[in-house]
Amino acid sequence: MKATGIVVEYNPFHNGHKLHATEARKTTNAQVIIAVMSGNFLQRGEPAFVDKWTRTKMALQNGVDIVFELPYAFATAHAPTFAEGAIKILDAACCDFYCFGSEDGYIQPFENSMALLNNQHTQYEQKIKEAVQHGISYPQAVNAAYKEAVQTDNTNRPFVDLTKPNNILGFHYMQAAEQIHSTMQATTIQRIGASYHDEELSDQRIASATGIRKSYFETHTLHDTQRFLPESVHHLLKAWQGDHSTFGSWKSFYPLLRLTILRDGPKRLAHIADVTEGIENLFYRAAVNHDTFDGFMNTVKSKRYTWTRIQRMLTHIFTGYTYNTRSKINTPTYLRLLGMSQAGRLYLNEQKKNFKLPIVSKVSSFSDSSLDIDIHAANLYALGLGKSEMNLDYKNIPIFLRESQ
Amino acid sequence: MKATGIVVEYNPFHNGHKLHATEARKTTNAQVIIAVMSGNFLQRGEPAFVDKWTRTKMALQNGVDIVFELPYAFATAHAPTFAEGAIKILDAACCDFYCFGSEDGYIQPFENSMALLNNQHTQYEQKIKEAVQHGISYPQAVNAAYKEAVQTDNTNRPFVDLTKPNNILGFHYMQAAEQIHSTMQATTIQRIGASYHDEELSDQRIASATGIRKSYFETHTLHDTQRFLPESVHHLLKAWQGDHSTFGSWKSFYPLLRLTILRDGPKRLAHIADVTEGIENLFYRAAVNHDTFDGFMNTVKSKRYTWTRIQRMLTHIFTGYTYNTRSKINTPTYLRLLGMSQAGRLYLNEQKKNFKLPIVSKVSSFSDSSLDIDIHAANLYALGLGKSEMNLDYKNIPIFLRESQ
Repeated sequence: MKATGIVVEYNPFHNGHKLHATEARKTTNAQVIIAVMSGNFLQRGEPAFVDKWTRTKMALQNGVDIVFELPYAFATAHAPTFAEGAIKILDAACCDFYCFGSEDGYIQPFENSMALLNNQHTQYEQKIKEAVQHGISYPQAVNAAYKEAVQTDNTNRPFVDLTKPNNILGFHYMQAAEQIHSTMQATTIQRIGASYHDEELSDQRIASATGIRKSYFETHTLHDTQRFLPESVHHLLKAWQGDHSTFGSWKSFYPLLRLTILRDGPKRLAHIADVTEGIENLFYRAAVNHDTFDGFMNTVKSKRYTWTRIQRMLTHIFTGYTYNTRSKINTPTYLRLLGMSQAGRLYLNEQKKNFKLPIVSKVSSFSDSSLDIDIHAANLYALGLGKSEMNLDYKNIPIFLRESQ
Repeated sequence: MKATGIVVEYNPFHNGHKLHATEARKTTNAQVIIAVMSGNFLQRGEPAFVDKWTRTKMALQNGVDIVFELPYAFATAHAPTFAEGAIKILDAACCDFYCFGSEDGYIQPFENSMALLNNQHTQYEQKIKEAVQHGISYPQAVNAAYKEAVQTDNTNRPFVDLTKPNNILGFHYMQAAEQIHSTMQATTIQRIGASYHDEELSDQRIASATGIRKSYFETHTLHDTQRFLPESVHHLLKAWQGDHSTFGSWKSFYPLLRLTILRDGPKRLAHIADVTEGIENLFYRAAVNHDTFDGFMNTVKSKRYTWTRIQRMLTHIFTGYTYNTRSKINTPTYLRLLGMSQAGRLYLNEQKKNFKLPIVSKVSSFSDSSLDIDIHAANLYALGLGKSEMNLDYKNIPIFLRESQ
C-alpha cells in the first residue's frame, strides 16, 4: 500500500483540512493518508481547542487513515524542530510521500531554494545567528538572510517566498527530510481560501482555524463556524461543548497559568525551556498585576519576542517543562498511535515490521521519557479545562474507525 | 506600659479567644496585649479560614492591642520551630509576660517538667530521635520519652501532662524562652470549655475553632456558629462570605493544589520542604486518582504520618516552599505589624526604640527573604480562594483601631 504523510494540528479540523487530505491522496495516488498531529499543546504555544482524541476522530472521519501524535517536545517547538520531529515520524512510518500546503502549489521553487541555501549554508546560518544576537526575531532574521541569498543568485530560477508561513513550514520539512536522507518524496498542494493567520471569516466555505476559534470565542456559539466545518466535525464540537464548560485557550487556562507563574517566581521560571534574558521577571510582574490573559500579554509582548515565542514559553511554564527535561529528548523514539481507519489498520499490519520506530498503542507497555511528557501534558491540559479525570492516555485506546466516511 | 504576649491563630476568632485575651490582661495586669499570629497558612498545615487582615480586625475588636505576623517559615513549622519563632517575636517586642492556655492553668508543673528534662536532656533527646528513626511519629515519640522521664522522678512534684495539645505548645514556648534567656515571665490560664480538637459544637458559648469551621463546612451557613463568636467576628465572617465564594480550606483549594502536585511530578516534589521518604510518589499517584481532597487524604494518610504532618507538606507544595528556601531562614528577622489599637500605638511609640527587631509597617521599605515568602504565601492564598488581586501585603497598611471595643 502506498502511504502519504501530512503534518497537521487540526485546531479544529475544517473544510480546508479535508481538501488537503483529499488532494494529498489524489496527487500521490496513495491508499493511505498518515497524519502526524500535535497533541494537546500546539506549535504556536497554545492549548488545543479540543483534545487530541477528539481531533483524531475528526481526522479519521474526514479522509485520514492513521493519526500519530507528534510528541510534546516537538509539537511545541519552533519550526525547525517541529518539522524535524514530524518528518522523522512520517519517515519512520514508511511513507512514500509527504505532502504539505503551500501558497502556489509547486515543488520546484522549494527545491531550487534548498539547493541555493545548501550552496551558501555557512554564510546563511552565520547571518541568521548574528541578526538574532542583535535582537532581531528569528523569523525576521531568516527572512533577511534568505532575501540576501536569493539576490546573489543569477540563474533566473524561481525561488519560494519564505515570508509565507505555509511555505516556511514546508521548507523546514524538506530540510528535515534531506538531513535524514529520507526516501520520502516531497509534494505540495496549493492552499485554497483563507491564509494561515486570517482572523475574519469569509463567505467562502474555507476559513482558517484561527478565524474559526476567534469566531467561537467572540460569539460563544459555533453557529457562525458551521459552514466552514465538515458536518461530522460540527457534531464533535457540539458534543464537546456539552461535555466541557469551555474550549481550550489561554484565556480559559489563564487562572491556572497565573498560579504556576506566581508559585514558581522568577528564579524557578528561569529554568523553564525557552525562558531567557530576564523575561521571567516580566512574566512574574505581569502575572501579579493582571487577572486576564489579554492584560498579561499586553504587558509582556514586545518587538523582541514574537507572540508565538512568548506563548511557547507559557506552554512550557504551564506544563513545568524545563531546559533540563528538554535536554534529554533529541529525536522521536516512538510512533504513538492515536487512531486508524480500516485502511490504516491494513497498512499497519502490512508495514509495521518495516517501521523504524516502535508503535505505541498502549502507553502502559512502553516506558519513555518523551512519552511521559505527552501523558503529563495531557493531564495538565485536562486540569486547564477543569476536567478531573487524569491519565486519559492510559485509559483511551487508539480510536478505530471501521467505516471510512 | 506593661505588655503581655500571646501566641494565636484565630482560625477564626471565637469567645474562647476573647476570654484568653481578657484573662491574660487581668492575670498579668498588662496595659497591652500583643498577639503574634500566623498568616494565611497555619500550624496544622491548612489555609486559614479567613485571611490575616480579617483575623487581625477580629483580634483588635476583641481585646488585642497589637498583632504581629508570625512569618510563614515558623507559622507552618512543627511545634518546636513554631514556638521558637513566636517567642522570639514576643521577646523582641519587649513583652513582660507571655501567657498561654493550658489544661489546668498552673505554671508550676510546667516549670517542674522543664527542670526535669533539663536534667535528663541528652537521654531524652536521644530517646525521641531513636523512636522517630523507628518510624514512630514525632508527637508519640515525645510522649513516650517524657513519660519515662517522669517515672524516674521521685520528688513527688507535679508535672505537666504533655499528651494535651495546649500543654505541649506551652511547654515548647517555655523551652524556646529559656533557650534565648528571655526575661519574659511565663504565665498560663486554664482553657475553658471545648478542648483544642473538639469537632462537635456544644450548648455552651465556647467551642473550638475546629468545631466552628466544621459546622460551617457541613451546613454552608454561619448560623450554628454564631453563639460561639463575638458579635463583631460574626459580622466580619458575614462580610467575608459576601466578598468571597468560599472560606479557606484544603477542600476548596484542592483543584489548585492538585495542579501543583501534578505539574511538579515526584521529582520536583521531592525538593519541597518536609517531603521525605518517597511520599512524593504517593502524593503524585493520589493526585492523579482523586479529584477531591478527602479522596486524596484517604489515600495518603497512614500510621507513619500524622494528618498535620501531611498537611504541612501540602502547604509547602502549594506555595512551592523548598528545602533550599527554608534553609535560608533561621530566625525571625522583623516584626511585621498587621494592626494596632490606640493603646497598641502608644506602646509602639514608647517601646520601639528598645525592640530587638525592626518593625515592618510597610513591606516595600523592607527587603528580606522571609518577608518575601510571607508576601508570596498571601498571593497563593488569594489564588486559592479565587481572588484576583495580588500583593495585598503591599496595598494594605496596618489596621488601626481608634476606639477599643
